Amino acid sequence: MKIVIVGGGSSYTPEIIEGLILRHDVFPVDTITLVDIDSGKEKLEIVGALAKRMIEKAGLSISLRWTLDRKEALKNADFVSTQIRVGGLKAREKDERIPLSHGMIGQETNGAGGIFKAFRTIPVLLDLAKDVHEICPDAWIINFTNPAGIVTEALLKHGPHKKVIGVCNIPYNMTQSTAEILNEDPDNVRIEFIGLNHFVFGSKVWVNGENKLDTVIDALIHQNVDFSPANIVSLGWSETFLKSMQLLPNPYHQYYYQTAQTLKKDIEAFTNHGTRAEHVQAIEEELFDVYRDQELNMKPQQLEQRGGAYYSDVACSLMSALYNNSEAIMTVNTLNRGAIIDLPDDAVIEVNSIITKEGPVPLVIGRLPQQIKADLLMMKAFEEQVIAASVSGRYQDAYLAFIMNPLIKDEKKAKTVLDELLVAHQAFLPQFKSVKPIHNA
Amino acid sequence: MKIVIVGGGSSYTPEIIEGLILRHDVFPVDTITLVDIDSGKEKLEIVGALAKRMIEKAGLSISLRWTLDRKEALKNADFVSTQIRVGGLKAREKDERIPLSHGMIGQETNGAGGIFKAFRTIPVLLDLAKDVHEICPDAWIINFTNPAGIVTEALLKHGPHKKVIGVCNIPYNMTQSTAEILNEDPDNVRIEFIGLNHFVFGSKVWVNGENKLDTVIDALIHQNVDFSPANIVSLGWSETFLKSMQLLPNPYHQYYYQTAQTLKKDIEAFTNHGTRAEHVQAIEEELFDVYRDQELNMKPQQLEQRGGAYYSDVACSLMSALYNNSEAIMTVNTLNRGAIIDLPDDAVIEVNSIITKEGPVPLVIGRLPQQIKADLLMMKAFEEQVIAASVSGRYQDAYLAFIMNPLIKDEKKAKTVLDELLVAHQAFLPQFKSVKPIHNA
Amino acid sequence: MKIVIVGGGSSYTPEIIEGLILRHDVFPVDTITLVDIDSGKEKLEIVGALAKRMIEKAGLSISLRWTLDRKEALKNADFVSTQIRVGGLKAREKDERIPLSHGMIGQETNGAGGIFKAFRTIPVLLDLAKDVHEICPDAWIINFTNPAGIVTEALLKHGPHKKVIGVCNIPYNMTQSTAEILNEDPDNVRIEFIGLNHFVFGSKVWVNGENKLDTVIDALIHQNVDFSPANIVSLGWSETFLKSMQLLPNPYHQYYYQTAQTLKKDIEAFTNHGTRAEHVQAIEEELFDVYRDQELNMKPQQLEQRGGAYYSDVACSLMSALYNNSEAIMTVNTLNRGAIIDLPDDAVIEVNSIITKEGPVPLVIGRLPQQIKADLLMMKAFEEQVIAASVSGRYQDAYLAFIMNPLIKDEKKAKTVLDELLVAHQAFLPQFKSVKPIHNA
Amino acid sequence: MKIVIVGGGSSYTPEIIEGLILRHDVFPVDTITLVDIDSGKEKLEIVGALAKRMIEKAGLSISLRWTLDRKEALKNADFVSTQIRVGGLKAREKDERIPLSHGMIGQETNGAGGIFKAFRTIPVLLDLAKDVHEICPDAWIINFTNPAGIVTEALLKHGPHKKVIGVCNIPYNMTQSTAEILNEDPDNVRIEFIGLNHFVFGSKVWVNGENKLDTVIDALIHQNVDFSPANIVSLGWSETFLKSMQLLPNPYHQYYYQTAQTLKKDIEAFTNHGTRAEHVQAIEEELFDVYRDQELNMKPQQLEQRGGAYYSDVACSLMSALYNNSEAIMTVNTLNRGAIIDLPDDAVIEVNSIITKEGPVPLVIGRLPQQIKADLLMMKAFEEQVIAASVSGRYQDAYLAFIMNPLIKDEKKAKTVLDELLVAHQAFLPQFKSVKPIHNA
Repeated sequence: MKIVIVGGGSSYTPEIIEGLILRHDVFPVDTITLVDIDSGKEKLEIVGALAKRMIEKAGLSISLRWTLDRKEALKNADFVSTQIRVGGLKAREKDERIPLSHGMIGQETNGAGGIFKAFRTIPVLLDLAKDVHEICPDAWIINFTNPAGIVTEALLKHGPHKKVIGVCNIPYNMTQSTAEILNEDPDNVRIEFIGLNHFVFGSKVWVNGENKLDTVIDALIHQNVDFSPANIVSLGWSETFLKSMQLLPNPYHQYYYQTAQTLKKDIEAFTNHGTRAEHVQAIEEELFDVYRDQELNMKPQQLEQRGGAYYSDVACSLMSALYNNSEAIMTVNTLNRGAIIDLPDDAVIEVNSIITKEGPVPLVIGRLPQQIKADLLMMKAFEEQVIAASVSGRYQDAYLAFIMNPLIKDEKKAKTVLDELLVAHQAFLPQFKSVKPIHNA
Repeated sequence: MKIVIVGGGSSYTPEIIEGLILRHDVFPVDTITLVDIDSGKEKLEIVGALAKRMIEKAGLSISLRWTLDRKEALKNADFVSTQIRVGGLKAREKDERIPLSHGMIGQETNGAGGIFKAFRTIPVLLDLAKDVHEICPDAWIINFTNPAGIVTEALLKHGPHKKVIGVCNIPYNMTQSTAEILNEDPDNVRIEFIGLNHFVFGSKVWVNGENKLDTVIDALIHQNVDFSPANIVSLGWSETFLKSMQLLPNPYHQYYYQTAQTLKKDIEAFTNHGTRAEHVQAIEEELFDVYRDQELNMKPQQLEQRGGAYYSDVACSLMSALYNNSEAIMTVNTLNRGAIIDLPDDAVIEVNSIITKEGPVPLVIGRLPQQIKADLLMMKAFEEQVIAASVSGRYQDAYLAFIMNPLIKDEKKAKTVLDELLVAHQAFLPQFKSVKPIHNA
Repeated sequence: MKIVIVGGGSSYTPEIIEGLILRHDVFPVDTITLVDIDSGKEKLEIVGALAKRMIEKAGLSISLRWTLDRKEALKNADFVSTQIRVGGLKAREKDERIPLSHGMIGQETNGAGGIFKAFRTIPVLLDLAKDVHEICPDAWIINFTNPAGIVTEALLKHGPHKKVIGVCNIPYNMTQSTAEILNEDPDNVRIEFIGLNHFVFGSKVWVNGENKLDTVIDALIHQNVDFSPANIVSLGWSETFLKSMQLLPNPYHQYYYQTAQTLKKDIEAFTNHGTRAEHVQAIEEELFDVYRDQELNMKPQQLEQRGGAYYSDVACSLMSALYNNSEAIMTVNTLNRGAIIDLPDDAVIEVNSIITKEGPVPLVIGRLPQQIKADLLMMKAFEEQVIAASVSGRYQDAYLAFIMNPLIKDEKKAKTVLDELLVAHQAFLPQFKSVKPIHNA
Repeated sequence: MKIVIVGGGSSYTPEIIEGLILRHDVFPVDTITLVDIDSGKEKLEIVGALAKRMIEKAGLSISLRWTLDRKEALKNADFVSTQIRVGGLKAREKDERIPLSHGMIGQETNGAGGIFKAFRTIPVLLDLAKDVHEICPDAWIINFTNPAGIVTEALLKHGPHKKVIGVCNIPYNMTQSTAEILNEDPDNVRIEFIGLNHFVFGSKVWVNGENKLDTVIDALIHQNVDFSPANIVSLGWSETFLKSMQLLPNPYHQYYYQTAQTLKKDIEAFTNHGTRAEHVQAIEEELFDVYRDQELNMKPQQLEQRGGAYYSDVACSLMSALYNNSEAIMTVNTLNRGAIIDLPDDAVIEVNSIITKEGPVPLVIGRLPQQIKADLLMMKAFEEQVIAASVSGRYQDAYLAFIMNPLIKDEKKAKTVLDELLVAHQAFLPQFKSVKPIHNA
């Protein structure tokens, strides 16, 4: 069995290598190929060497190599994981800085920044999907490139390759934190997740089949715990909000239900410390210094400080479940197919699913709870527009995606920020290369 | 044929009387009864006397009376028009002032103010519907009480009486203005309207069957015309917005797509001149001074300065079309029944319909245009929540309606403004009388 | 304005010519081109000459010509009407005889015969639609080739040209007969039609807006009236059936709700007199003898004895309404778009619609009445399969269409009849030319 | 934990007792109460005594009792299984004989017989559900009374108690037979089932996640195996049918796709040997003779010759899975909730589901395969009508259920058979007691 890691030079790669080592008895990978682009060559080599040392230490007969030749790498692949960042952290910095400098949420996967991350990523991954479909048509693409839900839907709608699953660490993190709150083994805790990637809610918390949602909500109110990953500073949720919603929000919901305070907090952080991207860049550099250490032969603890921690662990679990036809219940980004009646059948949703050799089969949810119906319907229609614009490269489509986003909406500011981002990112937006902004009369 | 005007003491009544007089040949009303509540007695008498003079002047044998006894009034009614304002302009003033004083849109039919107008109005009209259903079960209720769409849906969902149609002057005004732009007779201009009351868009503009939408959009960009009624100062729309949307927005859309500027403008107006309600109160007083004039025997011109002008004219046209089974195409608030596929079948939408003796039959629209799908799906889910809260009287339901409204959303401010409005309006919110706010830990 | 009549050599052509003459003041056609295929040359010339005499008699300056060159004919067309019979009456004879000889309903538009009529017709009309789209892209195709609903849906789903409307005389006939029953002017009678072509029901009968359905049902029970066109001998409906259905059936419903008796009657007729096709062939010959008469300059009465009488009159009314943007309500075969919620949006249904210059806009129906929901859902899914098979030319698809048809269903007989019809019609089934039947083990 | 077996005097009870004994380690029942009606007292005592001997032999401390007092029996119940036959085998005999004697399919759960079984059963089980809801509101009703799908939907739509699951042995039997065909352990074989009770298809056959449908279809064609339970003599399926359908039919499908042959076969059997009910009556008598044997302390082999064998085994597995929150995948009759997009959300379907403590959660299917869409949509609409008639007791509703059934359909014969069955069963149709047939004019 062969796994290809696209974006293999990523600092997260040691986590996925660790995941594969730990599962080797049930998920016996024999070949791992790391692949990256020219500009990532140095990082690829550092990470590749570390991965090799990790495998050697584990005493497993896994053949590991790294290459810049993607087509070559894909030959005979069974799984292709994607963890790329088109334009690198420099691009992320612009996604954060430009909106924030106009007094608008500037974030990696939400608002204007998230839209442009999609614009940059989708064409690249559609191109990869084409290669996969030709070279290794039976392989699964396990996408953990953000915005993971939008990207997965774009691949399923516009790509030739239908074996694509999106993963995110948020459901995993929420389950872990909830287990902690309840003082239970995470294996005994199952949360019913409803929604979209980074806009998912927990609607039930079962411990051995008993719903403990109220206990968890109480804990969130009174114990001041939260589910935030490293990249988000949570503001906590009010009793009124939690008791009315009767659902567990995820950390990204602060952008939508605490917009003003979050914006204030983020602008302060930006003013005082620069963007999160710049901070991450510093962490990355430190990480790579650590990775270079020829003595290092395990995943270093520092990696867990990143927001994306556990992402690749989730991906490993998923690949193992697919390989073993385990029928385990996991939370993935996959086609709706009726699971949430109110959303389109061909929408990608984040939902508990049985994992079989043929892919995830969602467990039905039924109708959306009324309290989140408005926002989920809106967000999905917005996501559809982002995908349409990513593919069409039309200015109007991009502008409409901005207008449809609840963190932007403003007809004038939308144009200002859109136009600036189009210029800032033009090297990574081939589909928009001949775009002509509409200028106001 | 008998018409009962509930809220007969309204300053708009002379318009409806004029409408009935002008249409008497095709719509031969023989009895008009104005009915109002005790506190409106004086105004009822003034308006009643003026209406009588108008009919006398017209030389028509219409019997007109006024009464405070609603049940008596309803006997043998064929049409019941509703134009009430629960709590009067004093209540509207609070709907405007309280949100604005917290830096939030404060408006009669949008945002927090609109929600509370629904909360006050729905129980009163459900009560009326019960009377109508018992006393004059074949009568049509023509509702032009705002928020007209929400109120109509509440009556259809929770009331016993299913012969209810909601009307608004916005589609009428937009058609008139568009005809002016195109220099055409309004009778030759038909706009395809898609959406919800006060959230309706014009998607096509036909002149004798040819679509002139582009011409109208060009005029909106360059000639600086707009569709605003007297109660809204328009900010105009940018070329980018109009050319991307490819739809005609209605004046209320400024609250949603120009929120910051509109808020700024409205707060300035509030700071400098007080609320719109106070302004209207002054106009009302002047109007009633005019109405008292025993020489006056026609609708005075000043009435046209009110935002609701033509509302009752629309209602008269509608009643005449129902009576005559005219199969004319009119824009009304009625059950969706599939006309807009993406919205619930039992939702009330604002849509072109054939008017028959059995009521309006919508013309199909099909799928929502992608550019407004997000907002229309969201607004309808929000409206459903407003109706649920209006009926349940639960605090959580009211809070969720606030959270679901795109002009509020903020989890903390939602509570502050909600709690203040609940106290301010408690005399008119019987369903909330035992409500207990959730207090934040 | 130019009209092209494809299948111009049809014996029905004088009716359409008469229709155009009678409407010339409101629908001022100036060019009519009759077009037909080589083998129809003689009939085309006879009909063309008669049409010319009719126009001359009317004293109108309409230029009429006939040709075998379809592409040439289509130039500058505004309307293209299609009234073709692929394989002629000889093919129809097989559609009737082969199923009947196996003890199965054998009919022109229902059961196995109807399926094969679709198989023969759809490729030819898709080819025409391609020409229309290239040569006269603004023209409307008015399809009255049977099975009109299936053919129209096939064109809309698989053809490039979206301006297609299907017409049938059944709703027209039912309205006329109903008006007679009620002793009313047909112009004052409006039936609400729900369903599919040849599977349509009347659900309401309005006379000036009052529903007279009960009266009509009573008359059908006691007066022994029926709605049958010349090609169907009605058996009458029982009181139990009519009072339970609370709907007006159309004549073709006997095949579905009186299958055994209808089959018995049809087999008797077939045994004693041969097929309906053979009978029609004789009528046709007589008609053409009449048409040849150089003195004849009007539509001869004999034409009204054909089952398709008034078909072309309906088509003329429709073309006039489209041309004049009349917004008249007519019953046509057009895209559902939500009008009947239970049926797919992209299904073609037979439904009352407003006729505008841009085409028909259905009036919403809402949910299907429960008593016909089972059959209409089934028939539409069956029709989808017929279209799929018409286009794919796969044996399995054709067989499944047979299995899905309630008049066939039987897994073994389906194969027998299918295989015989495939051989019998092979000259007219290019898409099935390389088909390989599955042979039973 | 307590289980109440309603219809405890049934000859199937020993199977359920055996199932509970075998699962006692994972599903530790401590009380079993058999309950029946007065007329079943003798059988109840025989079965009760046998059950007691079985438990004693197993050496388990389960308290078993039997009673005619249902309310008493229900106290503290955790599970209530229903296996009743209203009117007994005498009624079934009429369901079979009357239609057959009119040349129509006469069968226990299909056609006219199945409709009347529903008419008799639904009121009785709605009454039981009311008791359960009052006396043991947390209990699950496990319904294996036929027609199991229709009955379950009736309980969920019209009863107060929502914890109801329907079970059937057909999916179990099909899985067992398929495993035999494939020479695999049934635990490694999973079939994707799509459809309705007794109208379910197998769409995929996974062995360790690989789809082996083609192999199974080949075996069905060439090895002459079938899935029929004891009560149905299979006719086998043709290669053409199986290769076109690409689905596994269930034994009951012969009534729909081989109607004429099945009718012929059934009429022959009826003529020569009487009804299946009479045959079963003889088996039952023999069985009870065996049961009376005081030495017997296990389920006798003869029971497996009944068509319902394994039904109660399936029920035991299900109860254990519910109790243990096992998340096992089982095929049950439960609410659709979007699992099959084309069917109503509130329909009961037969579908693979995860079994949790809170009940079954269907795995999504998506859209219906085209080849069975027509029939499944039709059958579900028919089932809705059967339920409506079962509850309304209106003659028209019953007649429409007949007309909507594809095995009846004929407008005249429908009346004949309906009227005869109404008279024959009147003692067990309280809801129809004041029914007035419509007589044909």
